[in-house]
Amino acid sequence: MDTSSLTETTGAPVRAAAGNAVRVGIAGASGFAGQELLRWLAGHPHVRVTTAMSSSPDGPARTLPALARIWDGAIEPFSAEKLAEQSDVVFLALPEEAAATIAPGLIARGIRVIDLSGAFRLRDANAREKWYPATKLGALQPVYGLTERNHDAIAGAQLITNPGCYPTAALLALEPLADTGMLAGDIVIDAKSGVSGAGKKPSDRTHFSENHGSVSAYGVFGHRHEPEIEQELGAPVTFVPHLVPLDRGILETIYARVRPGTTSRDVAHAMDAAYGHSPFVRLTGETLPEIKHAAYTNFCDIGWRVDASGGRILLVSVIDNLVKGAAGQAIQNLNVMLGYDERTGLLPIADSLAKPGHER
Amino acid sequence: MDTSSLTETTGAPVRAAAGNAVRVGIAGASGFAGQELLRWLAGHPHVRVTTAMSSSPDGPARTLPALARIWDGAIEPFSAEKLAEQSDVVFLALPEEAAATIAPGLIARGIRVIDLSGAFRLRDANAREKWYPATKLGALQPVYGLTERNHDAIAGAQLITNPGCYPTAALLALEPLADTGMLAGDIVIDAKSGVSGAGKKPSDRTHFSENHGSVSAYGVFGHRHEPEIEQELGAPVTFVPHLVPLDRGILETIYARVRPGTTSRDVAHAMDAAYGHSPFVRLTGETLPEIKHAAYTNFCDIGWRVDASGGRILLVSVIDNLVKGAAGQAIQNLNVMLGYDERTGLLPIADSLAKPGHER
Amino acid sequence: MDTSSLTETTGAPVRAAAGNAVRVGIAGASGFAGQELLRWLAGHPHVRVTTAMSSSPDGPARTLPALARIWDGAIEPFSAEKLAEQSDVVFLALPEEAAATIAPGLIARGIRVIDLSGAFRLRDANAREKWYPATKLGALQPVYGLTERNHDAIAGAQLITNPGCYPTAALLALEPLADTGMLAGDIVIDAKSGVSGAGKKPSDRTHFSENHGSVSAYGVFGHRHEPEIEQELGAPVTFVPHLVPLDRGILETIYARVRPGTTSRDVAHAMDAAYGHSPFVRLTGETLPEIKHAAYTNFCDIGWRVDASGGRILLVSVIDNLVKGAAGQAIQNLNVMLGYDERTGLLPIADSLAKPGHER
Amino acid sequence: MDTSSLTETTGAPVRAAAGNAVRVGIAGASGFAGQELLRWLAGHPHVRVTTAMSSSPDGPARTLPALARIWDGAIEPFSAEKLAEQSDVVFLALPEEAAATIAPGLIARGIRVIDLSGAFRLRDANAREKWYPATKLGALQPVYGLTERNHDAIAGAQLITNPGCYPTAALLALEPLADTGMLAGDIVIDAKSGVSGAGKKPSDRTHFSENHGSVSAYGVFGHRHEPEIEQELGAPVTFVPHLVPLDRGILETIYARVRPGTTSRDVAHAMDAAYGHSPFVRLTGETLPEIKHAAYTNFCDIGWRVDASGGRILLVSVIDNLVKGAAGQAIQNLNVMLGYDERTGLLPIADSLAKPGHER
Repeated sequence: MDTSSLTETTGAPVRAAAGNAVRVGIAGASGFAGQELLRWLAGHPHVRVTTAMSSSPDGPARTLPALARIWDGAIEPFSAEKLAEQSDVVFLALPEEAAATIAPGLIARGIRVIDLSGAFRLRDANAREKWYPATKLGALQPVYGLTERNHDAIAGAQLITNPGCYPTAALLALEPLADTGMLAGDIVIDAKSGVSGAGKKPSDRTHFSENHGSVSAYGVFGHRHEPEIEQELGAPVTFVPHLVPLDRGILETIYARVRPGTTSRDVAHAMDAAYGHSPFVRLTGETLPEIKHAAYTNFCDIGWRVDASGGRILLVSVIDNLVKGAAGQAIQNLNVMLGYDERTGLLPIADSLAKPGHER
Repeated sequence: MDTSSLTETTGAPVRAAAGNAVRVGIAGASGFAGQELLRWLAGHPHVRVTTAMSSSPDGPARTLPALARIWDGAIEPFSAEKLAEQSDVVFLALPEEAAATIAPGLIARGIRVIDLSGAFRLRDANAREKWYPATKLGALQPVYGLTERNHDAIAGAQLITNPGCYPTAALLALEPLADTGMLAGDIVIDAKSGVSGAGKKPSDRTHFSENHGSVSAYGVFGHRHEPEIEQELGAPVTFVPHLVPLDRGILETIYARVRPGTTSRDVAHAMDAAYGHSPFVRLTGETLPEIKHAAYTNFCDIGWRVDASGGRILLVSVIDNLVKGAAGQAIQNLNVMLGYDERTGLLPIADSLAKPGHER
Repeated sequence: MDTSSLTETTGAPVRAAAGNAVRVGIAGASGFAGQELLRWLAGHPHVRVTTAMSSSPDGPARTLPALARIWDGAIEPFSAEKLAEQSDVVFLALPEEAAATIAPGLIARGIRVIDLSGAFRLRDANAREKWYPATKLGALQPVYGLTERNHDAIAGAQLITNPGCYPTAALLALEPLADTGMLAGDIVIDAKSGVSGAGKKPSDRTHFSENHGSVSAYGVFGHRHEPEIEQELGAPVTFVPHLVPLDRGILETIYARVRPGTTSRDVAHAMDAAYGHSPFVRLTGETLPEIKHAAYTNFCDIGWRVDASGGRILLVSVIDNLVKGAAGQAIQNLNVMLGYDERTGLLPIADSLAKPGHER
Repeated sequence: MDTSSLTETTGAPVRAAAGNAVRVGIAGASGFAGQELLRWLAGHPHVRVTTAMSSSPDGPARTLPALARIWDGAIEPFSAEKLAEQSDVVFLALPEEAAATIAPGLIARGIRVIDLSGAFRLRDANAREKWYPATKLGALQPVYGLTERNHDAIAGAQLITNPGCYPTAALLALEPLADTGMLAGDIVIDAKSGVSGAGKKPSDRTHFSENHGSVSAYGVFGHRHEPEIEQELGAPVTFVPHLVPLDRGILETIYARVRPGTTSRDVAHAMDAAYGHSPFVRLTGETLPEIKHAAYTNFCDIGWRVDASGGRILLVSVIDNLVKGAAGQAIQNLNVMLGYDERTGLLPIADSLAKPGHER
């Protein structure tokens, strides 16, 4: 495959010729998101993982047994040079500082990059300096990769900054309502996350005994996902995340006010208009979604209730933090970048396009 | 012991003579709250459980093994007559309808009653009719048993309506601030509860596989604890409970606005003034409490954060739903009714009063 | 498709012509195994689920949201007639009695049947009468569907009796060693299962609060999977299952004695010989497998340790009870029946056969 | 109090004069066992914790909130000198090496020591050298503190080596049967432990995400509790521990053979004879115990089943690993050393001796 096609300023879709898959490299392959990338990409018909790297000193020994027979490659020590040589597209599943350091060189060599860290998410220079001080934007033009909301820009992007897990669930629920001017008053986002969201590194916070039988709030009035949500939503929010004793999944309960007279049906119309053609947003209406239904999938499930007389609205938005909140959405973005059906490799359907009659 | 002393209209404290413990009966002893009453009362130095009854058809077989050697009595079939004969004080740990039916007869015979159901909690006749239609108040004068806030009325009460688990955590956090006029704007109470809060009866909702790895909201804009909180607080609230995958404990995250200029220190002053002498409220300040620390105890742990520039306040209030949210607070109320130290039988300290230097 | 091809006594493989998928019916679609069948079959390229039935009175309401966009059909009330008309192959995910009643009629009409219940597993008439009294074998010739061990008979079977979840894990670990005469002494199988193994029906046993923070043994010296294991292994075993507080997965710790001089390498040879070409058995050698690695997959992971000086062997065998222990193995058997690659629809690899170099 | 009485070779019981409690020091107070010691000792009527020390660099910050109002002292940096000065009895809840180093000096100064580590458990010099190489026994005469089995020696001991958590559950179940010569054949002990048993230090093994939804075996044919069990039992055993996804508790399933003709009633007789006067052993007979019933208590629950025709016996023994398996049994031993009722401070009964009619 001629990688020069990837460097065209048009960012035109790359299609793999028969037997000539797009070459994908992963940096940070032994973390939770990295492993999830490997798992899903192994089933993607048009890409081939050519290298998976990790700079973790202890290596990937403990958790890769889960991937045997699914992805049987070896995790290599990190090498920026080799990563660039072997990849048409690179996924960065690294800490912010490492991503901020590595991404520019890859872009300069014409590699398309999907960064799962927060390094390039904030557009305001002051906010970026505060939350991601290692990031030097230079001439880079990162595209915010909330797939359902930013499809066209993603298609032509050289650098995609994959959204944070919490912002993904919040923005997919709130943006259609914000667009229609339906919302009023304070917006409170109370998020409950599985412990995998705290990362693979052992710590007091991730100790089993600290979380089993417990719930704890953290990052109050100071989580970096709050400015990310506010940037994309264009409105202030109060965002408080909690750890709950489960492994995977996020449920966000969102409290807001709506203009008098707004009904649940109005909300449904706005949601339908926004997501009628989005395969990974499942609108559950007044039946509120639960984490279990979306876990291990790339879906975002959204339900709501409206107290019409009181002018209150409650939204519940659910994702798997490692899939739609990280690796899955990254692959969904890859599909858009490369011109494939968004579902490719993500919905367990051999020929998903041939299945008629999706629910909406 | 002469039970006639219990029928005095003054509701004067009853003290057990040496070797002459107060006789306590429990109706609904095989449910979660009932068993918790047995567990704690077994260690209470001044009372004796004379009868523990259950009308559950399957009997108490499955869970009472946990109480062997702690309480070795037998659960009896329910008999209102026997209950009245053998008790100076009765705990009702029954469904609302049963409690509403049984309580008046006990009161009429001079038995003091502590009802753990919601039957007698709502004072507004319309609200009571809506949420607890079986309740006929008649001449009964139930006293709301939030111990820390209603001490004097509890001391003289004939019928105590023990607060709901959710209201207990919410009101203890909010009332001191409401009293000082500190609060402004909408009040949102996002509650996370262990599954024991859904009761012992098997159902889809309480199935292990429905809750493991999941979180779900329920009762949105329609939970009967919402009017209970509003009644006591005197202000509207938005209250949404969630089931989280743990057994025991509630954490409530409470969002409100405060008047400009309010600081965390102001909140601390209000809380200290309210709870400086309350043994079961632990103020954790800006270190937010976690469920694990209060589980299996009668404590309510309260912490907070104030965003002074933004005029926002966040409170976190934690209890064990079966202890401070049910059986423990009921015993705390018993202690107040009978003139004992509130801690009697509830803090695992042989002579708790003799231990010097409690933290506050 | 002409179903008459399915009735040939040769049981010749049925291949779907282009656009002419094999028609599959599911009875018991709202149970845990039934839903798992729907999930996996939705991604199978050569079959089409034509009907999914349930006789559950409460319907499938509570859990099917998880399948939206994956399988969007409707669960129908059970009808034996319609099931027969619409299916080339039927999966029975029903209680034993229902399966025993329904299967013969389907077979008589030339439908191939894969029964996930235990109704047809025991060959000894006395044992069958004891454990599955509703079963009337008649002229039926059920084939025991432990795929890796019975491939040829499965290919030609009209009625496959899918193995129990516990026997699957036990037999895959033990049979290669029994075949070589390596084992000696008592065989003890200590099994730990997630609560989904106890079924979807709410009961004390499946209540969240009974299992959270607990472990319990059940069925001691009287679980019907014990005779099933002994039948297939040809040797007596002691089998004791336990419920552990997780949703999905079984880990069996198997204790036996080996002939003096037997080494871990000898075990590896026997295992390699048995499973060198089996895509779903992953041999982990002396690194013992964990439930997490096999959960949500059709793999059986097997590891072992040999105490050569003491003549002791310990095997650990892990599966997901709902996949390799139920729905996944049933589909694996379907693939063998129909002449497809065993992996079809089960390994998340778009073109699984084109991926070179499986680990063994 | 005159500590010289503690140095008498008779080890005569020390009783606190009124207002003159026994002074207790704890080394290792911020670990799981250390905190559990503090929790229980706070309710002990005859002792006073005079110092609680920790050498943990990060201090006790994260978990001591749970003890507020229960024990409100401060954790001090470790000082051997101060520990000796302020204590009549010292609990060592330290790693083996630290305990091996510190204990001799305390003993030499006449302090009675209860060591919760394994440093002094093995009597065979070779085994001790292998498993606890830091231990230099010298003239020390450690007494194995399995309270129910070694009461008299404990009463007079200067150094008690508190049993391991796994051996406690195993030996209490097996010893009465071994004493009567009832057992035959191999003994297999399959243990399931909560993750708190792996200690407070964060690691891959204790990470929430590694354990949630998983079960894993470890220490196969090489856990140091195996020689400890064999030493006390006087017979070889196969012992394999597993981590299960819960916080506290151990359930051991024990497989053995019995002499032909042995019945469940024979087992009951042996158990009754052994534990008829032991307040903390609850015999559940053929109703097998579950972890939940013993968690957070000092009980050991033992049940059994006998397959008389097959000559098989299965025992299930359950404890809380941090209570009967560590801190609780240590306090039980303290009570025996000091001549108090064994239950003092451990059963939540104000006047436990005055309660008549324990179940056996």
